[in-house]
Amino acid sequence: METLTVDLGERSYPIYIGQDLLGQTQYVVPHVKAKQVMIVTNETIAPLYLEKTLAAFSEFNTASVILPDGEEYKNLEVLNQIFDSLLKKHCDRQVTLVALGGGVVGDMTGFAAASYQRGVPFIQIPTTLLAQVDSSVGGKTGVNHALGKNMIGAFHQPQCVVIDTNTLNTLEDRQLKAGAAEVIKYGLINDPEFFSWLETNIQALLSRDPQALSYAIACSCQDKADIVSLDEKEAGMRALLNLGHTFGHAIETAMNYTGCLHGEGVSIGMCLAAKLSQKMGWITSKTADQIIRLIEVTGLPSQIPPNLNAEQLLTLMQIDKKVQAGRIRFVLLKAIGKTVVTDDYDPIALKNVLEGA
Amino acid sequence: METLTVDLGERSYPIYIGQDLLGQTQYVVPHVKAKQVMIVTNETIAPLYLEKTLAAFSEFNTASVILPDGEEYKNLEVLNQIFDSLLKKHCDRQVTLVALGGGVVGDMTGFAAASYQRGVPFIQIPTTLLAQVDSSVGGKTGVNHALGKNMIGAFHQPQCVVIDTNTLNTLEDRQLKAGAAEVIKYGLINDPEFFSWLETNIQALLSRDPQALSYAIACSCQDKADIVSLDEKEAGMRALLNLGHTFGHAIETAMNYTGCLHGEGVSIGMCLAAKLSQKMGWITSKTADQIIRLIEVTGLPSQIPPNLNAEQLLTLMQIDKKVQAGRIRFVLLKAIGKTVVTDDYDPIALKNVLEGA
Repeated sequence: METLTVDLGERSYPIYIGQDLLGQTQYVVPHVKAKQVMIVTNETIAPLYLEKTLAAFSEFNTASVILPDGEEYKNLEVLNQIFDSLLKKHCDRQVTLVALGGGVVGDMTGFAAASYQRGVPFIQIPTTLLAQVDSSVGGKTGVNHALGKNMIGAFHQPQCVVIDTNTLNTLEDRQLKAGAAEVIKYGLINDPEFFSWLETNIQALLSRDPQALSYAIACSCQDKADIVSLDEKEAGMRALLNLGHTFGHAIETAMNYTGCLHGEGVSIGMCLAAKLSQKMGWITSKTADQIIRLIEVTGLPSQIPPNLNAEQLLTLMQIDKKVQAGRIRFVLLKAIGKTVVTDDYDPIALKNVLEGA
Repeated sequence: METLTVDLGERSYPIYIGQDLLGQTQYVVPHVKAKQVMIVTNETIAPLYLEKTLAAFSEFNTASVILPDGEEYKNLEVLNQIFDSLLKKHCDRQVTLVALGGGVVGDMTGFAAASYQRGVPFIQIPTTLLAQVDSSVGGKTGVNHALGKNMIGAFHQPQCVVIDTNTLNTLEDRQLKAGAAEVIKYGLINDPEFFSWLETNIQALLSRDPQALSYAIACSCQDKADIVSLDEKEAGMRALLNLGHTFGHAIETAMNYTGCLHGEGVSIGMCLAAKLSQKMGWITSKTADQIIRLIEVTGLPSQIPPNLNAEQLLTLMQIDKKVQAGRIRFVLLKAIGKTVVTDDYDPIALKNVLEGA
């Protein structure tokens, strides 16, 4: 078992990573504030892990709420189901919420915790690779709006993050690969050694080798924790974590959050960022190919789905949170492991990249 | 024109109080961050003051959204109308929201600002006495849930508060009196001199004498600002501001937020707090009568509506935010101008007070 720390002063918290952590009291009990606990999970995860998780909280007055599974349910209406459960159980402002599931459960539970009675504590127990390496760490919470992803939310840090790598054994291959997209992202942003490690070890990761998983998760969480510690509320360098996301969100939104997983959107987005960076002359075609190759070897999509067009994506990107004064800002590459946030690119090159030219 | 300051370090902000402030650029322009402004108001206020307010923001790219008027619309569904407008106008995370209206508009706009893209700035322009002396100052924002008032929200401080006392000239008498309930509250909490001033000057206030209004609003805002500065997130003494509110919220909820204004609920609640304090032997019957007399002279209700019963109110108070470990905590009186937050009262005395015994 490995422990990392997200260093945020008073709001610092540990990330526990290892096998068989679920159901063990020592990782969660010290982080519960009072007597009431509400576990939020979904209909896929509940039959697999809810009982085991409840056991870890057996000394508290614990209830649970089971949400429908899927990004299309990450909205204000389903969020209200969490508030319904909390109020029906007379939960007070000392209640601790627990997010047991993937990124959708984590983001919604975190936002429910940020807003219930103007803020209560919560614990993240992510069960997908994507949530383990990305959404459970850093305190970004929220829900989608029909007109844009994650448009409504809050910064709210958890009390701790418990990552049991065994939960990945029940994860579908496609979901595992989608999580690997975010893992690759950390190598591209600022960790070229990790990128090289991934080029060598991606098959071990995909075959769920416990050592490979633990190493990749710990590297990813450490990379993210370092960036979040320096810039909690995305005033500056935290924006680098959005590599591939401006493109990716637009693709996800255009497909109504169905048909394209978040990690798949990000993997296409990273390829588009590589191509735009290449067209700007910032990276060589060899480097761009090296990036696209790792993404394709992982079994992730690298091209915009054929039913979407450049105009549509440009319109959607205009309402992304990264837009400032009408200019779309992208995270682009100067090398593998060196990225910049910029709106200083050629709009024609952008259009060409979106058109596959 | 008088300027007060809410002292919260980096989040400090001014409150401007005076006649004819609406429509003047100097109070708002320095507090707008970028080019986009979205004014949120309601169908009652829009025809009266929207045009004038728009004029103050004429140098920006300003749009507006008009909500239905009433506490019964202070919910997640109507909140979403604000997000709809922001997204349709492609507002980015530099947008400044402006709350033009009473407490409902202020609370909802503040929560929309806290949550839109995880937080954007906002300005409060309160147009009711209640909003001017209470809800616009201090950063509490939120919406109601069918099972409880203000159960969903955030702490989010405005950039400034602009109080134009002229807006009270179009306020209904009943609304003015409801606001006076919160004014009286400040005297009771920790300002006995202000309470005495109100005993002498309440008729001048109710007849909208500009000097009396400005004095009462400035005293109330200063009293509130002092408490909020010491305890922004209600870890301790800020809870004193809830005098009359635990009773009051239960009465409002029992009446489905219709038929009883917030200030009316609070005025009944303050009378119940006085009676319970008297039954506990903490204040004399003379003091309790003095409190109830000022409330009745103001034209505010002092008794629980006849269609509500003690059991119902006790059940509703159990889900109030002030409950800790199952015990209902009240703000009770030790004297006029001396209050305590306590659960150390006799439950039989509470029941008697609720039964009017």
